[in-house]
Amino acid sequence: MTKLILDLDTGIDDALAIAYALGSPEVELIGITGTYGNVLLDQGVRNALAITDLLGRPDVKVYKGLPHSSTTDSFEVLDISAFIHGKNGIGDVEIPDSPREAESESAVDFIIDAVKTYGKDLVYVPTGPMTNIAAALDKAPEIKDEIGRIVLMGGALTVGGNVNAWTEANISQDPEAADHLFRSGAPATMIGLDVTLQTLLTYRETQRWRDLGTTAGAFLADMTDFYIKAYETTSPHLGGCGLHDPLAVGVAVDPTLVSTLAINMQVDVEGATRGRTIGDNERLNDPNKTMEVAVGVDVPRFLDEFMTRITSLAKNAG
Amino acid sequence: MTKLILDLDTGIDDALAIAYALGSPEVELIGITGTYGNVLLDQGVRNALAITDLLGRPDVKVYKGLPHSSTTDSFEVLDISAFIHGKNGIGDVEIPDSPREAESESAVDFIIDAVKTYGKDLVYVPTGPMTNIAAALDKAPEIKDEIGRIVLMGGALTVGGNVNAWTEANISQDPEAADHLFRSGAPATMIGLDVTLQTLLTYRETQRWRDLGTTAGAFLADMTDFYIKAYETTSPHLGGCGLHDPLAVGVAVDPTLVSTLAINMQVDVEGATRGRTIGDNERLNDPNKTMEVAVGVDVPRFLDEFMTRITSLAKNAG
Repeated sequence: MTKLILDLDTGIDDALAIAYALGSPEVELIGITGTYGNVLLDQGVRNALAITDLLGRPDVKVYKGLPHSSTTDSFEVLDISAFIHGKNGIGDVEIPDSPREAESESAVDFIIDAVKTYGKDLVYVPTGPMTNIAAALDKAPEIKDEIGRIVLMGGALTVGGNVNAWTEANISQDPEAADHLFRSGAPATMIGLDVTLQTLLTYRETQRWRDLGTTAGAFLADMTDFYIKAYETTSPHLGGCGLHDPLAVGVAVDPTLVSTLAINMQVDVEGATRGRTIGDNERLNDPNKTMEVAVGVDVPRFLDEFMTRITSLAKNAG
Repeated sequence: MTKLILDLDTGIDDALAIAYALGSPEVELIGITGTYGNVLLDQGVRNALAITDLLGRPDVKVYKGLPHSSTTDSFEVLDISAFIHGKNGIGDVEIPDSPREAESESAVDFIIDAVKTYGKDLVYVPTGPMTNIAAALDKAPEIKDEIGRIVLMGGALTVGGNVNAWTEANISQDPEAADHLFRSGAPATMIGLDVTLQTLLTYRETQRWRDLGTTAGAFLADMTDFYIKAYETTSPHLGGCGLHDPLAVGVAVDPTLVSTLAINMQVDVEGATRGRTIGDNERLNDPNKTMEVAVGVDVPRFLDEFMTRITSLAKNAG
């Protein structure tokens, strides 16, 4: 069975990604590694522990990652992130703290150990900055050839960014780390705004969770409504909220949900377009393509999988 | 039979595009409209007349287009353009002037008249700035629904630009015109650097033309060698010259040469990324996609078609 690690800055769509993974019988979620972005590292780890408890899976271990990029000394949550995800990262919905704490092993070491243990059966899904995987590739470069696949939420190839016209939020937090990953040769699938802004959720779907009458259903509905409301301000033309992180999990479970372009990618780390994800002209004609970028998505099938899996989980989690 | 108009700033690869079109029995080249870019408008028109004569097709009419973009008062050839195409635009190879002159009808009126006459049988292939087609769309907006297809060489979606990291040369000459075309709703296929930097020609191929022992063969070989030599300086990693404009003609003749992404495009006309060709986020979820962008190309098949058609033409033209 495919082993899954989610690397999360647990905000709202990260929480939905956890639910999607736990609702997918095809994969085993062997751990969550924490990163920063939508929230501070510690808040994200707190949220991941609390959410796995709430969803009835206190067996899922959570590991602390790095608190900021290697090119900065600290990290502060952007105002826009707090606006979209709430101050606590989960739409300002209150849920109990977990009695558990993060594991003592670091996220970076856990990632490396998991690659050594599971090899090609391991899929790693980062949905925040690429800081942890870049550090793991620095410490153990050989894992690029040993890991099954990396399915990352981040970037934008054929559409504009969401931080500015050319930069997507996850990549903007640590362009150097993403560039390191993209050029590493590790097999990676980029799930960017190209496709995640096509997979939209509305109040109609969240009402189905609320109607379950369960704690988990109410939490998911209230949290996601906060997110949809934020999108009404930031992206009124969309008519819903983008299911960024859950789509990455969806593709990790079933790669046929998207159509991809095989291309060797880079991240601009210098100049006016710092943070842009783009094909590397110098490797355009290299027949060995180590990355794929999702450029199309089967929206109805993904939304059906998304709702079926999460609704079933929220019903049974109580 | 498909009727073809080439809109050219006749430099070197434009000249190869003429040869490709004249060597393609599937299409009838009903006219060449002149634009500016690689050379000044008048030099390009002069070259188009001289080349069609040299290739034994003095029946092909040439029309003068606009001499500069609507947002500028004049146009000067960039140093880099002169370096790549030569001062005279055709690698500084000397060929006789044509006894003919450009037609008295303007390029813009000719384009509109051709749409009215041939409708869906007409394919228009601009390989310079989009100034003429933008002016035609201004004057007769209804042609967007009447024309068969526009296959343009220009832009870069999944790779960087060649003027700077985000802008391709043809688009950079008149971003507003390209944006007008992209947003017009006209059915258009963008053949950008994504694919044209994959279709490379080397001295081995030009030698085949020289070996024909014909005037046309010698001209094509000498001119193209100038271009390959320039690429050795500007893009040494490629190992050849990019067949930009001929690939657009190739796709106009046979769309199956490329794989495409259906996407509603825009050109950034403001801000740091002025001149960038990118998907329009606001029309991402519009099910009606009016454009396709080539993201893959069957390189061996295109190069075979390219060499077969042009070599046969150069052999028989004498």
